[in-house]
This record gives sequence, structure tokens and C-alpha cells, in this order.
Amino acid sequence: MKVLILGGDGYLGWPTAMHLSAAGHEVGLADNYLRRNLCREEDVEPLFAVPNLNERVKRWGRVSGCGLAVFIGDLIHWEFISHVFETFRPEAVIHYAEQPSAPHSMLNRRAAMLTLTNNLTVTANVIFAIKQFSPDSHLIKLGTMGEYGTPDIDIEEGWLDVAHKGRRQTFLYPRQASSLYHTTKIMDTDLLWFYVRTWKLRVTDLMQGPVYGLVTETNRGYPELYPFFNYDELFGTVINRFIVQAAGGYPLTVYGKGGQTRGYLDLRDTLQCIELSLNHPASSGELRIFNQFVELFAVNGLAERIRTVGKSIGLKVDIRSVANPRIEQEEHYYRPASTALLELGLQPHYLSDAVLVEMMEIILRHKDAIDAHKIFRGVKW
Amino acid sequence: MKVLILGGDGYLGWPTAMHLSAAGHEVGLADNYLRRNLCREEDVEPLFAVPNLNERVKRWGRVSGCGLAVFIGDLIHWEFISHVFETFRPEAVIHYAEQPSAPHSMLNRRAAMLTLTNNLTVTANVIFAIKQFSPDSHLIKLGTMGEYGTPDIDIEEGWLDVAHKGRRQTFLYPRQASSLYHTTKIMDTDLLWFYVRTWKLRVTDLMQGPVYGLVTETNRGYPELYPFFNYDELFGTVINRFIVQAAGGYPLTVYGKGGQTRGYLDLRDTLQCIELSLNHPASSGELRIFNQFVELFAVNGLAERIRTVGKSIGLKVDIRSVANPRIEQEEHYYRPASTALLELGLQPHYLSDAVLVEMMEIILRHKDAIDAHKIFRGVKW
Repeated sequence: MKVLILGGDGYLGWPTAMHLSAAGHEVGLADNYLRRNLCREEDVEPLFAVPNLNERVKRWGRVSGCGLAVFIGDLIHWEFISHVFETFRPEAVIHYAEQPSAPHSMLNRRAAMLTLTNNLTVTANVIFAIKQFSPDSHLIKLGTMGEYGTPDIDIEEGWLDVAHKGRRQTFLYPRQASSLYHTTKIMDTDLLWFYVRTWKLRVTDLMQGPVYGLVTETNRGYPELYPFFNYDELFGTVINRFIVQAAGGYPLTVYGKGGQTRGYLDLRDTLQCIELSLNHPASSGELRIFNQFVELFAVNGLAERIRTVGKSIGLKVDIRSVANPRIEQEEHYYRPASTALLELGLQPHYLSDAVLVEMMEIILRHKDAIDAHKIFRGVKW
Repeated sequence: MKVLILGGDGYLGWPTAMHLSAAGHEVGLADNYLRRNLCREEDVEPLFAVPNLNERVKRWGRVSGCGLAVFIGDLIHWEFISHVFETFRPEAVIHYAEQPSAPHSMLNRRAAMLTLTNNLTVTANVIFAIKQFSPDSHLIKLGTMGEYGTPDIDIEEGWLDVAHKGRRQTFLYPRQASSLYHTTKIMDTDLLWFYVRTWKLRVTDLMQGPVYGLVTETNRGYPELYPFFNYDELFGTVINRFIVQAAGGYPLTVYGKGGQTRGYLDLRDTLQCIELSLNHPASSGELRIFNQFVELFAVNGLAERIRTVGKSIGLKVDIRSVANPRIEQEEHYYRPASTALLELGLQPHYLSDAVLVEMMEIILRHKDAIDAHKIFRGVKW
């Protein structure tokens, strides 16, 4: 299948590109290096340097024999995105091309406006490009479990059937997020839902939890093919950050009471979920929503796990509770459903001690590169 | 009170400016003439010419003795909006500054992107300007009843208490609109709700139905102070359009079955609702939502009413059903609540025959200016 990955240089985009090309798909990648530029601007570059996208594609080609089409440019410009769609004519589009950091979106007005404008303009342009150039293609959009927030009732998979005064209606599950970034994902969902109904698009919207990991089937043994790996407060997800902190001798920073519970998944499971979505496309006029995670952890529990596993390989790991810089519930009800992807065939990788040890060992090879200054700044909400 | 009206040149903005200055408030107006420019671009200018905003303010000053501050510029530019807020330091902000037409938002990609970018950037800028320059000021934001769409259960006033699997949660009432324009209003609500919780803003979000009319307490007898009056498919609201069609001998255009039911209100009631909101501000950290309309009509019923009233003053009015160019339900359940504004003291003006006759008589004075070409083009969804 011709699969176009928007944001193909990213932490998820690049492993997806390798995975889908290895599976025999014809893959195109678009990126404008936004994430790399933001990391440089904020002095929070990843743990190890990563070649540019064209160079990565060459290296992957040498390993796999796969050729990938690369389009470098900014998808907020119609001239660029229309060129990409007209040239590549995708049968499926995987849309990761967003400013992906909650703390970055809360840094200041400039960062907030960039997040809002970039994320919504790209999503709107993708919708218009699909309508014009490949109206039957399947859009797989990366949303976030954070769209739901932490309501006091069970989180269902995308939709909620409401009984009210003797009548019933199924709604998009009501969303209320705890950062501007997450709020732009809600707005993306609003936009997609409108155009799905109006133009009969095929859309799968993935409500994904925080991802961890860096080794996948396709890059195992090829460190030059690893995705970039952020361990800072802005772009590092919590498990990745904690492992770097453990390896670097920096206390694990727990915000407030640490009862914040989320649904997590291994990078390899993101790849499975994307592939399952691709192989079982949404129907025309369907907004299909999957909750994409495999197990729940509270931050406290994660910190304890990583302390224990660190100790088993000789690391001394401290845990430090810091005043929560965010406005969020630190203890809350959390019971999200996630059965649809399992029903499609997802085989979860759970967060085993072996997985943690493998990550720690890789990170320890880069121990000298860990810059404590990058780890915690306390970006306030 | 120092009241800043964003979109102060508009169909609602200008009457609001006169009304609040007559009531003793110190009023500032900002506008970039977007609506006027779009009308000229699309060849759908209002029924009669209207002086520019500075000239209108001079004329109103001669009639009333009130002086209003005028800021001409585009609120999507931070340089401009920060200047306005820093100079004027509002105690209340009335935000009408959006591309207000559903059909315009569906015209083409350019119009869609303008609607999306303008509406969301202005709302975000307003939030940031309030935070920086007047954090205690009360934001009164014009939303639309169209945010709710036409669900099969009762529409409550902004919020929905959901019982689910033995637990309860109050959510923003789930929204699903039937145009991009209406969808941008949903996205505005998402954005406001996030920042209300995060920064403790005071916000009143008015879910308003279609407005009709042009005569108010302050402009009665002064036609040069009337708001601009669109009768075209893009910017004319349905009752205003039907009255022009009746006066101009053009059949009333009913889309499809004509069972589309909405909550309507007289322009004078918009002014009352704004003033009531202003005089009873939302609390810090409160997103207060009012459903702003006074009576329900189906399009069919409106057409019949206008035919009958037209006949009473000697007009021969035909009704023509046209294939619905929109994707919307033509027959549906519709039971929206609207008690909060009544409890604050709203005294509704209902759509009486006398109101219709007065409007028709004013429009008949401009009969020669009615351009049949502007009335219906069938902008397709």
C-alpha cells in the first residue's frame, strides 16, 4: 500500500517508516524538522545525535533494501502539502505532524500560538489534501488519551452513549484536557468529526498514551537507526526520562503526590497498532476511535519500579517529589477502556524488568552525554 | 465600566456599542472590516451602504453625546491586540470578532482556512491579552446554539450531568456542529474551557441562536445608525433574508423539507442578554454558558408566517422548496433549555406580526436596491 507518513522524522514517525517499509509498503515521509528545531531553540536536544532524514533513509536502505520517498517542507503551506499529495497519491496517510509536547505548549505565548496554529492548520490541510487528491485514502491520525482528561466515570473508547430524560444519544466522548497541546488534539478531533460526516472521509483517530522505548524489530542492532530520544521535561515522555535520570544519577522527579495515572505502551506496540489500523481501514464516513495503550501506571509506581530495577543492575536511584508545576489532578479515578486494538490482534509488550534493563543498558552507554540541566526546569502551567 | 467590543463594526457589534454607551459605559471598539471585505469579495454587500466605523462613531456622538474609542486593525496580530488592551485596559471584553458565516466557511479551502485561522487565533490572542493586561476582566464571548447541533436528547444549558456505570460526571455538553464555522465555535469553547481552568479567567460563553431585526432603542428614527443588513445566502440570517425576499418579490427559499428548527431572537434581545451578562459577571475560574434565544421556529413555519404577514400589507409571497445544499437533518428532535438569561431578567421580544410589518416597511423603502442575484447561490457543503 502507498503510505504517506506526516512527521516521518519523529520519535514515532521514523520507526513507523522502517516498520511499514519492512512490511512491504511503499512509504513516503514528510517533515519540516520542527521538533528538532524546537529542541535546539530550547536547548533540550536528544541524548544522542541523529542523522537528517535523507541520511537516515539512505542508511535504512543499505540495511533493508527499502527505498522511501522524502519530502522536506512545512505542511502548513498548501503549496507544499498539495505537492506531496499530488506527487505521492497515498492510499493511507499517517498523521503525526504536530507539535507534540504539553510543556512546550505551556512555555509562553509564542510556543502556545505555534502549537495551536501548527497543529490545526496541518490537520485542516491534510483534510483538504485528502479531499482533493486521494478522497478514498484512509487517514490514521495520532490523538492522545489526554483528550479525555481524568473524568470521574469510566473512559469509553471514543464514544459515550448517554441516556437523558428518557431519550438516548451517542456522542463523541466528552473531552477536557490539561494542557494546550492536548486541547489542540481535542480540536483536531472536532475538525475530523465534522469533515468525516460532511465529506465521508475514512478516519482512524488513535487516543494514545505515553510511549516508551527505542528498540524495535527493525532497528535492533543498528543504533544509527534509533529514533531520537529526548529525556528533558519538554519532549521526553516520563518512562524514557526516568530511565535517563536513573542512569545519570539524577533523582526521579515526581510531580506532587505522584498519583497521576495514565495508560502506557511500548514503542513496538505503537507500531503494531498503526499496522493493525492500516490493515483494517475505517469505512467511508467513519470516524473510528481506538484507545491505544496496554497497561496503567501511576507515576509513583513507575518511579518505584525503576528504582528497584536500577538497583538490580547496581544503580543507586533516588526519588524526589517536587511541587507540581502543572495544574492537574494528582489523585483521581481512571478506568479507560482499550479493547478494540486487542480485538484486531494486538499482542502487547508489557513493561517487564527485562525491557527496563535493556533500556537502561543502552542509555548507560550514553551516560556521559546526559546533561542534568535539561532534565527539569519546572515549566509552569 | 470600561467595555471593549471586538468586532465592533458588525451586525451585533455596532448596536451593542450604541446600547452600552447609552447605558453609561465607556466603550472601545476594535474591528478590521473583515466582514465588509468578505461581502465585497463575494459580491454580497448589505442592502444599504453604511458609513465606516469612525464616521458612525461621530454620528452617534452627535445624537447621543457619547464618545467611543475606535481601534482599526486585525486582532490576529499580537502587536495590534496588545496595543488595544494596553491602551484601553478593559474591565469587560465582548468578543464578536469572528468570521460569522456558516456558508462562507464552506465556500472553498481559502474561506475555510480563513475562518479557522481567524476565529481561533483571535480567541487565543484575546485569552493571552486578558491574561497579560487585564486578568480580572470579564470575557463575554459569542458562541452559537449551532455548537450543539441537533442531538436526539434535550439540549441543556452548556453542561450535561452524565450517569454512567454507577458513577457521575458533569461535562461540557457534547457538541457536534454542521458547518466549519460552527465547528470553530466548538473549538473556541474547548480553548476557553482549558484556560478558564488553568488561569482562572472569568468567561461567559453565549450560545446564541439566529438573530433578526435592525431597529433598536438607540437607532429608532436614525436610519444612518442602523447596523448593516445582509440578505444574501452567505451573511444574511434566515428571517432577515426572508423579509427581503418577500419585499423584493423573490420566492422564500426553503432548503429541503424545511423542518430545521432553531431558537431565534430579536436583535434587541441580543443587546439585553449582553447587558445582563455584563452586569452579572462570571466568577474567577468560571466558564458560564447561557443558551441565548427566546423562541423556536422551524423554517417552514417561518416561511408561512412571513407569507401571511406579507399578504396583510399587500405583498404576494411565494415559497419555493429547493434541494438542500447543506448536509443537515431536515426533520429532527429539538428541545434546548434557555432559562438562565430569563432568570437574570431578560424580557423577550417575540416575533409578532407588528415586528415583521415594521421590518418589511423599512425594507420596502430599499426595494430598488434588492439584487436577486445575491439571494441564493446554493453554496454546497
